[in-house]
Amino acid sequence: MSDRPEPAPEKVYLHDVPLARAWDRFRAALAAEGLWQALEAEEVPLDQALGRITAEPVWARVSSPHYHAAAMDGYAVRAQTSDGASDRSPVSLQIDSQAQYVDTGDPLPDWADAVVPIEEVEPVGATDRGRATEAVLLRAAVAPWGHVRALGEDMVVTELVLPAGHQVRPVDLGAVAGCGHDRLRVRRRPSVGIIPTGSELVPIGRTPASGEILEYNSLVLAGQVDSWGGQARRYPIVADDLDRIREAVLQAAASHDLLLVNAGSSAGLEDFTARVIAQVGEVLAHGVAVRPGHPVILGLIRPASAGELAENRKATPVIGVPGFPVSAALTGEIFVEPLLARWLGRPAREPERLQAALTRKVHSSQGDDEYLRVTVGRVGDRWVAAPLPRGAGVITSLVRADGLVLIPAGIQGVEAGEQVEVRLYRSTAELERTIVALGSHDLSLDLLAQELAQRGARLTSANLGSQGGLIALSRGEAHLAGSHLLDPESGEFNLAYIRKYLPSLPIVVVGLVLRQQGLMVAAGNPKSIRSLADLVRPEVSFINRQRGSGTRLLLDYQLEQLGVDRSQVQGYRREEFTHMMIAAAVSSGRADCGLGIQAAAEALGLGFVPLMQERYDLVVPRQHFESPLLSPLLQLLHDEGFRQMIGGLKGYDPAPMGRIIAEFGE
Amino acid sequence: MSDRPEPAPEKVYLHDVPLARAWDRFRAALAAEGLWQALEAEEVPLDQALGRITAEPVWARVSSPHYHAAAMDGYAVRAQTSDGASDRSPVSLQIDSQAQYVDTGDPLPDWADAVVPIEEVEPVGATDRGRATEAVLLRAAVAPWGHVRALGEDMVVTELVLPAGHQVRPVDLGAVAGCGHDRLRVRRRPSVGIIPTGSELVPIGRTPASGEILEYNSLVLAGQVDSWGGQARRYPIVADDLDRIREAVLQAAASHDLLLVNAGSSAGLEDFTARVIAQVGEVLAHGVAVRPGHPVILGLIRPASAGELAENRKATPVIGVPGFPVSAALTGEIFVEPLLARWLGRPAREPERLQAALTRKVHSSQGDDEYLRVTVGRVGDRWVAAPLPRGAGVITSLVRADGLVLIPAGIQGVEAGEQVEVRLYRSTAELERTIVALGSHDLSLDLLAQELAQRGARLTSANLGSQGGLIALSRGEAHLAGSHLLDPESGEFNLAYIRKYLPSLPIVVVGLVLRQQGLMVAAGNPKSIRSLADLVRPEVSFINRQRGSGTRLLLDYQLEQLGVDRSQVQGYRREEFTHMMIAAAVSSGRADCGLGIQAAAEALGLGFVPLMQERYDLVVPRQHFESPLLSPLLQLLHDEGFRQMIGGLKGYDPAPMGRIIAEFGE
Repeated sequence: MSDRPEPAPEKVYLHDVPLARAWDRFRAALAAEGLWQALEAEEVPLDQALGRITAEPVWARVSSPHYHAAAMDGYAVRAQTSDGASDRSPVSLQIDSQAQYVDTGDPLPDWADAVVPIEEVEPVGATDRGRATEAVLLRAAVAPWGHVRALGEDMVVTELVLPAGHQVRPVDLGAVAGCGHDRLRVRRRPSVGIIPTGSELVPIGRTPASGEILEYNSLVLAGQVDSWGGQARRYPIVADDLDRIREAVLQAAASHDLLLVNAGSSAGLEDFTARVIAQVGEVLAHGVAVRPGHPVILGLIRPASAGELAENRKATPVIGVPGFPVSAALTGEIFVEPLLARWLGRPAREPERLQAALTRKVHSSQGDDEYLRVTVGRVGDRWVAAPLPRGAGVITSLVRADGLVLIPAGIQGVEAGEQVEVRLYRSTAELERTIVALGSHDLSLDLLAQELAQRGARLTSANLGSQGGLIALSRGEAHLAGSHLLDPESGEFNLAYIRKYLPSLPIVVVGLVLRQQGLMVAAGNPKSIRSLADLVRPEVSFINRQRGSGTRLLLDYQLEQLGVDRSQVQGYRREEFTHMMIAAAVSSGRADCGLGIQAAAEALGLGFVPLMQERYDLVVPRQHFESPLLSPLLQLLHDEGFRQMIGGLKGYDPAPMGRIIAEFGE
Repeated sequence: MSDRPEPAPEKVYLHDVPLARAWDRFRAALAAEGLWQALEAEEVPLDQALGRITAEPVWARVSSPHYHAAAMDGYAVRAQTSDGASDRSPVSLQIDSQAQYVDTGDPLPDWADAVVPIEEVEPVGATDRGRATEAVLLRAAVAPWGHVRALGEDMVVTELVLPAGHQVRPVDLGAVAGCGHDRLRVRRRPSVGIIPTGSELVPIGRTPASGEILEYNSLVLAGQVDSWGGQARRYPIVADDLDRIREAVLQAAASHDLLLVNAGSSAGLEDFTARVIAQVGEVLAHGVAVRPGHPVILGLIRPASAGELAENRKATPVIGVPGFPVSAALTGEIFVEPLLARWLGRPAREPERLQAALTRKVHSSQGDDEYLRVTVGRVGDRWVAAPLPRGAGVITSLVRADGLVLIPAGIQGVEAGEQVEVRLYRSTAELERTIVALGSHDLSLDLLAQELAQRGARLTSANLGSQGGLIALSRGEAHLAGSHLLDPESGEFNLAYIRKYLPSLPIVVVGLVLRQQGLMVAAGNPKSIRSLADLVRPEVSFINRQRGSGTRLLLDYQLEQLGVDRSQVQGYRREEFTHMMIAAAVSSGRADCGLGIQAAAEALGLGFVPLMQERYDLVVPRQHFESPLLSPLLQLLHDEGFRQMIGGLKGYDPAPMGRIIAEFGE
């Protein structure tokens, strides 16, 4: 493809620069090229102007109304002629010379300065289609300019109607049209080319083989660009090949305001993006101290031959976007959005912010600004923020996020309960009507969430295990907790733990389901696992649930009953956090078995060895139980359709659903 | 056009029903027709799914990752083999059998369960392109599953990824693609036909003659529909003719989910909409007790011949939208948005709300819910809401509105200072950085607002007159007040009044401009008005500014100096609220003259009789003067370009701009 010698590969270590410094360099380089300013304007008809950004102030060309208009159906009169009118001495006005019928919006005759609404006059003599043709009688004096929309009441010619840099809303279209415009000068939409690179990438729609990765970052980046007012174009995937990437970058640079190259932005052997940019332009920063997202590249493309680019543009900004999906999306928010804002001449987006208490301690890597994804809820009188998984590969952490918490470089972390500022992805109105469930996870919570969403309510749940949920309730961090904690002494579920963890909180325990717990094994049960006693067999590997989860307690209790030594269970210390992750581990052969519910085994086509039925309850502080927020959820538990849906899940029995199992305290 | 006899015109009085009742009727009628439910689903490729509403839950089809993937560039190993490794006794692992190089994202070999980052190993023996080919040395033990993205870390097959009724965001596209989908089932966009009716209407782009009205409600309604997820189609204007309107309605009904007929919804002689709907269907409500907007019609179209509509639809909902633009836009918000939400299967939009102190008393018409438009600002520690003009014809009241205050039917009004709930049109983040100016209006404030908008700041101003502004400052309702109050005793501007109205508030008075005040007269000054003494001439009519304005004080002072009797001035009691409205009144011949600034006269090409120069200051409480909020504004006053722009206005002298005229208190 190219006759240039392959540069000697060498290990490059990224030297992350702080975000502000990276932005300073980028901004300065763009400014030097005349690229740190609004793009040129273009004129669009008003019916295509919605959502666009005004390129200049809009001044009224005509007044609105542009004449004195009747504001009611009635008779135009001269106010003076009504002076002294009263019930005892009504004044009669002659039609045509002293009173003239007008509909709302009609212009006043030159001699008139007021309108009397039709209900307030009496026709005298003949009428035609309800209108007096001879005279009308007034029984009260009329104020000058009463019921008149005076010329310019709304807008006066030359007045400022919209500022420049304003995003056009529906009502703005009305005002702009009403003052005499039928077109609007708006900023051209910045054009952004997105080039996915990577030999491991396959287009979506394909079933990926092992080692192949579905390429969807370009979809996310394009969606971001479009929703921020730009125009995105996604290019086909380019394999990890320096020459091909260089060619794709050079070609695309000619037709876009900005290029996003994703990924190859790190410093691995097959990370070509920085080398390509260095070859055809300039790398301004490689590595920015933000997590997720640090292996980002900021650069400019300056092809040797000027002919390769549009004549009056010297350089094209380029961003090397990291490959992990959370990193890619955050790179969009941190670098692309402010750049588009600048080009569109509008302020950069400012998220709503609120102060919330962090539900658990978070350690941070001290050198980087970390963007922690959190869910947010209003529990009682305060806002709480619960951290989501921090991995840069977990895009669902962004899908589920209600906001971001920035943990700045230089601090060690944030303590549980500490107040943090959340940059919100959702409106506080939406968060105000969000039910926060923390505790044990169950499939029925997903289905509850789904059904509630269809009823305009919202349920978010995060998995802390059953004990974690009760502790969260004691700290006022959730509206309810799912729990299935077996008390070894009584054989009863949950109640003993509630007494222990929540001794002083008035609580209502609401039944949800009975679930079949057992060992998930590979389909056909090739290792013939029959009971927990088999876990100590040397050829059997196990995968465990995290400490504090109800399933873990159940395991420990049963192992003790059986006299099985935990240290003999291979994999006892390997922990996963949900039933489905246990099922996935067994399905993939990472472990031979794990304890969990039948529905999860069923979902992945695994074998299942039933061990016992357990009750899964919702533990609800009375304060929330009685709040309007929870009422749609509690109603749903008595909905026959929902009951049947849950009953249809393998291993589920909805018998206790909605029943009040116990009440504590007052 | 039709052989049906014209129904006898009769005066119809609307019997407004409360909003909730109107909605109940509408909902019941739609439900009876099977129309109060989500529309059918359609499948779209992911790159067209942004912003659409999911029609069903999205479940993961494949896990993500769908294999155990390296999370770092490094060597895949089996954790067990590293047991006991330390600085003193490093462990050597053979390449291929015990360690294998992996790039980030590569699948782990079957036998491996951990990755050691490349930085943490030492190659032993030969290397190829930086990779060890013989062995690597480990100096620390490795945890099982360290630096591995385990299968299903992000999503596990069968997991709920998105609920139904969810509006798709950029990151959602990534998650949906990542779990194996390349298409998405979303709700069909509701199709809304908009028919403007009225013989007085002309299309935008035309210069309207007297009595003609630019038709722009259809633009606003279409913009609303589109931004709420529907698809709008605007039909051509139909004249006020029963048959033509009926024909247009019947034709359009066949191809839309909803028809909006604007206007003719009131009860005037030429208001045909209700009659048309009664002829081809059913009027469910005519008149709803909301202001603006009460003459709204809710109905169903049921054509006699079923063939006129699509086969499987029996009726088409229709809304008769009132003609006044504010009424039309609010009808969209109150009736159209919730209906579209229902059809799209998403919750109706819930605006952010906040509590604010109303800046002045508002009387309300007790029978109706009133939607008061307000501007909102954060002044010191509290939110304040200032009412905007209430006329249904003033679309700029919606353009300028930061939110709506609902004054419910049955109460007489709201007192100044009372807390009200504002439904916000803007984010609180945007409102937090809004400078609120109340007081006298000046053109330079518009230009300040424009320049600040380009700098990412925001200035809103409402005209209360100079004294009104000082009173607003004393009540903590504004960040600054524009003022040009002449003290007759000292001949000085503003200072005496600040002492009087704001005796205890630390204040900084910042100069803005010197302005030429004088009499605006018709071009050529046909009535030869030379001074205020001419105002008493019987053939001269005057138009006045409102009490409390600086210009009004100036007039009264000068009249007194001249010994002119106010009662002899024709039009002394006719009040307008801005210089531009005075100019418009003179320009239209509504008055022969009015007192105001030269720039306003100039803008409308009027004659001008200079009387005196006055100083227009910004009166700023020290608390705000020193706040970061105001600093871009104060900086702008020292900007040479801005100074020149203001100096270029006729009658303006920027000499005092930015100068500290006086400081009070502290």
